[in-house]
Amino acid sequence: MKLVRFGEKGQEKPGLIDSTGKVRDLSSVIPDLAGEALSPASLTKIAAVDPTSLPLAPEGVRLGSCVARPGNFVAVGLNFADHAAETNNPIPDEPVLFNKAPNCVVGPDDDVMIPKGSLKLDWEVELAFVIGTRARYVEEKDALDHVAGYFICNDVSERHFQIERGGQWAKGKGSETFGPLGPWLVTKDEIPDTSDLAMWLEVNGEKVQNGSTKTMIFRIPFLVHYISQFMVLEPGDVITTGTPPGVGLGFKPPRFLKAGDVMRVGIAGLGVQQQTVVPFQL
Amino acid sequence: MKLVRFGEKGQEKPGLIDSTGKVRDLSSVIPDLAGEALSPASLTKIAAVDPTSLPLAPEGVRLGSCVARPGNFVAVGLNFADHAAETNNPIPDEPVLFNKAPNCVVGPDDDVMIPKGSLKLDWEVELAFVIGTRARYVEEKDALDHVAGYFICNDVSERHFQIERGGQWAKGKGSETFGPLGPWLVTKDEIPDTSDLAMWLEVNGEKVQNGSTKTMIFRIPFLVHYISQFMVLEPGDVITTGTPPGVGLGFKPPRFLKAGDVMRVGIAGLGVQQQTVVPFQL
Repeated sequence: MKLVRFGEKGQEKPGLIDSTGKVRDLSSVIPDLAGEALSPASLTKIAAVDPTSLPLAPEGVRLGSCVARPGNFVAVGLNFADHAAETNNPIPDEPVLFNKAPNCVVGPDDDVMIPKGSLKLDWEVELAFVIGTRARYVEEKDALDHVAGYFICNDVSERHFQIERGGQWAKGKGSETFGPLGPWLVTKDEIPDTSDLAMWLEVNGEKVQNGSTKTMIFRIPFLVHYISQFMVLEPGDVITTGTPPGVGLGFKPPRFLKAGDVMRVGIAGLGVQQQTVVPFQL
Repeated sequence: MKLVRFGEKGQEKPGLIDSTGKVRDLSSVIPDLAGEALSPASLTKIAAVDPTSLPLAPEGVRLGSCVARPGNFVAVGLNFADHAAETNNPIPDEPVLFNKAPNCVVGPDDDVMIPKGSLKLDWEVELAFVIGTRARYVEEKDALDHVAGYFICNDVSERHFQIERGGQWAKGKGSETFGPLGPWLVTKDEIPDTSDLAMWLEVNGEKVQNGSTKTMIFRIPFLVHYISQFMVLEPGDVITTGTPPGVGLGFKPPRFLKAGDVMRVGIAGLGVQQQTVVPFQL
């Protein structure tokens, strides 16, 4: 299934994409795409509903983040060998983890705002997933049982904040609008194999990232196992798994985003996002 | 006011401490100590209630975390000059920020569990505060308007995970039970000046930390201003502001916690916490 959240910002309802590509309103079945509504039992309940029995959403309705604001939003850094190289970092022995502020999630096509004081705004196409079942010290062989589904995350990053303002990366990863998620949450059953998904990102029509999950260092089952050694993951938590080469920081000379730039972001089977970069507004 | 959450883990109700030190049940006034219930309007409403009109909580009831699981749990690192020195870090030019997993918060006297694979479990007495009003690009002069109140946080840390497992500190800061908060949320009006509060931590009766907020490098108004440049802070979000010297990592040789150890943690005006360290349990 392809699950969405639609409507005005902050007022989104859950929905699904029917066989004709139209958005159907799921709010009679689940309250939101969050927490326990992402459990296997809940997804089974949704799958049993005849989509044509659900109301159509208004034509052209805005899509919100495909999951509600998560309880935790964990990101994996330097998880593609060639991306680690382009940013002059060694290939990590273990996953590098950091946090994005959970309230930075936005719709897949919402504007991305340049934060105040930003000097180096950058893009990162990433494969993200959402937890459906609590994960605490999970073994790798059981890890996918805890995953509800997959979607695109543009892990928008401010490199000056992240690297040059002292300390930890979180500072450059959580500004408002830094987490476009979607367009759809694609349930796990539809993507049995995530090991070779094409992933790309265009800026103003130029393909700057053009990779595949096949060059990921640490794969999703290992990541669920690994992260669950350090914290408890709960239904609705989002993990984004790192980006392939081609970020602005990796260009020589580096290239960063400016107001008016348009990003298009795609992963095979997970749809396409498109964001316009807009100036800072208080 | 001193506000608490009491009852079984996961079933806590909001309460307040009356003039005789007893816990009164506030659940007829607010749903929980979370989000909008921490707004100035809500705190004013609570202050207008006659505590003797509220039901008494059961004698000896467990206290939970004094705020509900936060939407974001931000920590400031190396924020005491002498603590930076004891951990062989330079004094930071700007606050160092990292995240604790929001679901690591526990009651002030709950057990602290040694995580699986832990080698270097450590303690940190910290002054924490909770946001009462959304904070986005806040000026330092207005910053305290966004703070609802203060409490103790034991920023429990696993130094092997934090420093020796690759990458960012978050890995050693968010294991379950790593965030005892309380005993009470003391509203801002009761502590007009946080610039010289004694703070201490004992392990098995030995005072290992014995400091004061007067050696903090970056103070709360600046921290609210600063963090709000990088992410939006929302009602219920918790910020913990760093620890004075005397953590286990700073001893020569270093000293770490083992099962059976008892931590007592205090800050002037904010009460005392006490946790027992317990072995890992799956």
